[in-house]
Amino acid sequence: MKLPRRIAAEFLATAFLLCAVVGSGIMGERLAGGNTALALLANTLATGAALVALILTFGPISGAHMNPAVTLSAAILGDLSWREVPAYISAQIVGAFAGVGAAHTMFGLPFLFASQHERSGMAQVFSEFVATFGLLAVIWGVVRTRPTAVAFAVAAYITAAYWFTASTSFANPAVTLARSLSDTFAGIRPADTPWFIIAQFAGAISATLLFRWFQSKGSE
Amino acid sequence: MKLPRRIAAEFLATAFLLCAVVGSGIMGERLAGGNTALALLANTLATGAALVALILTFGPISGAHMNPAVTLSAAILGDLSWREVPAYISAQIVGAFAGVGAAHTMFGLPFLFASQHERSGMAQVFSEFVATFGLLAVIWGVVRTRPTAVAFAVAAYITAAYWFTASTSFANPAVTLARSLSDTFAGIRPADTPWFIIAQFAGAISATLLFRWFQSKGSE
Amino acid sequence: MKLPRRIAAEFLATAFLLCAVVGSGIMGERLAGGNTALALLANTLATGAALVALILTFGPISGAHMNPAVTLSAAILGDLSWREVPAYISAQIVGAFAGVGAAHTMFGLPFLFASQHERSGMAQVFSEFVATFGLLAVIWGVVRTRPTAVAFAVAAYITAAYWFTASTSFANPAVTLARSLSDTFAGIRPADTPWFIIAQFAGAISATLLFRWFQSKGSE
Amino acid sequence: MKLPRRIAAEFLATAFLLCAVVGSGIMGERLAGGNTALALLANTLATGAALVALILTFGPISGAHMNPAVTLSAAILGDLSWREVPAYISAQIVGAFAGVGAAHTMFGLPFLFASQHERSGMAQVFSEFVATFGLLAVIWGVVRTRPTAVAFAVAAYITAAYWFTASTSFANPAVTLARSLSDTFAGIRPADTPWFIIAQFAGAISATLLFRWFQSKGSE
Repeated sequence: MKLPRRIAAEFLATAFLLCAVVGSGIMGERLAGGNTALALLANTLATGAALVALILTFGPISGAHMNPAVTLSAAILGDLSWREVPAYISAQIVGAFAGVGAAHTMFGLPFLFASQHERSGMAQVFSEFVATFGLLAVIWGVVRTRPTAVAFAVAAYITAAYWFTASTSFANPAVTLARSLSDTFAGIRPADTPWFIIAQFAGAISATLLFRWFQSKGSE
Repeated sequence: MKLPRRIAAEFLATAFLLCAVVGSGIMGERLAGGNTALALLANTLATGAALVALILTFGPISGAHMNPAVTLSAAILGDLSWREVPAYISAQIVGAFAGVGAAHTMFGLPFLFASQHERSGMAQVFSEFVATFGLLAVIWGVVRTRPTAVAFAVAAYITAAYWFTASTSFANPAVTLARSLSDTFAGIRPADTPWFIIAQFAGAISATLLFRWFQSKGSE
Repeated sequence: MKLPRRIAAEFLATAFLLCAVVGSGIMGERLAGGNTALALLANTLATGAALVALILTFGPISGAHMNPAVTLSAAILGDLSWREVPAYISAQIVGAFAGVGAAHTMFGLPFLFASQHERSGMAQVFSEFVATFGLLAVIWGVVRTRPTAVAFAVAAYITAAYWFTASTSFANPAVTLARSLSDTFAGIRPADTPWFIIAQFAGAISATLLFRWFQSKGSE
Repeated sequence: MKLPRRIAAEFLATAFLLCAVVGSGIMGERLAGGNTALALLANTLATGAALVALILTFGPISGAHMNPAVTLSAAILGDLSWREVPAYISAQIVGAFAGVGAAHTMFGLPFLFASQHERSGMAQVFSEFVATFGLLAVIWGVVRTRPTAVAFAVAAYITAAYWFTASTSFANPAVTLARSLSDTFAGIRPADTPWFIIAQFAGAISATLLFRWFQSKGSE
């Protein structure tokens, strides 16, 4: 498909993803009466379900990356031309902020406002490495052998990772940036984003290289 | 399939959908001990699961629109004859009221009784625009490329949208009308329905036009 | 497949189904700290998930009816020989009691003990009619057009129906009988079972006739 | 695929599975405010979702056993060479401990520390027999007839079994060993592991023999 349509799809898909992540966090926290497990359950359910819907909808148009780490990894493996990477990543970042702003608007909050939610320390950074490593492993493990199952595999992985990583698994640099301007349940302090993003790219590249070996036609 | 069977299917599918939405709202609220997040979780789970079952069951007969906005959009795209639109929409509306009445009967309430649940203001109306835009995007994004996944994509989308929109995502004019005569968890004041319905049709038409561009054989 | 294997499969599948329904009810109630919505959520999740697993596992062997109303309906539609109906239903009933006993044993309770959980009145009986009508509609709607989706459709339907019917949707005479000897969360007083079973067969037969019309090669 | 890659896949898959089981147990318990049903719901959701993702990802490489009882059963049925069994089981056990250690690291706990969570008595041991019998029944019932559904069937089964068995369904000797060195929600005292493991192998072998009969070309 031609690039303008794919860019529009990446923008829209990432906007809806952030809408789902941030909006359901707000709704969950408002209704949960102080029980954080219940708020996170709602947040998890909405995020996982949104991923199923968005990957099925936009996958056939743009691949539905919604994630600069995925786009970079696709370029490394030759699934995307390096020349298209900047357009993809720009659309994802702009879409992510638009989605956060839309969620805030729906819930009567300012369009964007900096988060004060601290997420720092080695345990958090290691969590993001693990989370993104796993995400890319799932994508490359499934996309070559059962492309029709990718939406379900990715959604299931993120559903689990919200609970098994200490950082609730951002696993996505565009998502991380956009959530830094949301002082809500899903937010992250702007000052904490650089280490998250470094860990995410490190995890993504590690998994990419591992699956290149798994799927190579090597001698062992 | 012949029209009478398709009309019967639309009637029955929409009735069961409203039964699920309203009935699970009643049950959820009765059992949740005042925790609204828990009541909405039950409501979400039941609605999403009902959509999977109903679209798989009635899709092969009538398309399982259960929604005048979907029927209108299908007519715009040429998937349904304009002459059949009034019969479809009538069956959906009558079915929706029948389903609400059946749910009330199962829970020992009056057959129909006007809701006092206020849902007004720009944030709510904008939420319905977003909700229905997303719903139609998912339908037209998936139905052309992976028709067997539509039931799962739509159910996943609505599951997410219950939490990421401030209005809990009615996204359906027949559902909106019928829920105005249910003074229960899922209700909406009759006075608030016109703006909801206008926003729903606006969202539906916007998404329809966008996906006509995405899927056109144009030059860019 | 030969009858002895199919009978063994019906026995085993129904036993595991009741294990899941009754066992998860006990576990849910024990852990939920008095919140019935939470206990029913656990009960719903376990029942729906068990149906996915059991229909996928035993469907290819015996059809995985696990339900005398389904077996009767299959005989009416010619999908099962009438001569095999008694063996199927006997295996289901014996399996259902064995499953309840196994669940009780796992949780340190008596093998079988009569329930004192009252479930009576017209609203409950009407609920069982609706629940079983819907179940058979889903089965016959999906089995002819997308047999590989039956497990997901049935599980999704029951997940929803646990919440949208006032009776929590037994929808199965063998399940009803067996749950009458479990004085736990999922139980039903023996005295209340006859009306449940009558309503279940009435709902099943109504849906069977309706779908015979839907799928007939008639002139309208 | 060559053995080194399959061993690496078993190691990684089992590590991620234990990460999910133990990590989500820690997160669930920390957030649930003392409500064990809520903590177990989170634990269940994360485990089931992780199984979907891991079996889809690693199934095409190594079969994604992640479980010595499954590996043994596969060898009995001729699906795996007996010579490869020790390498598979070693990778699973080492991977399981690595996964527990990774989860502990993400949550700021010691790498490994013995559990004090008592799980003993006949009801628990019988639960593990039932749990593993059911797991192997699901695997062998589905893998021959609908291999693409195995990930969903296994995940659904474990989701249900967490709630319908009194032991929360370990059903896996490598998982049992590794959870004995985690003094968290998902832990088990080292002294209680031998009976769990014996019951698991007994359940696995029983189900394997039963399904050999179901799928044999015998005369009845």
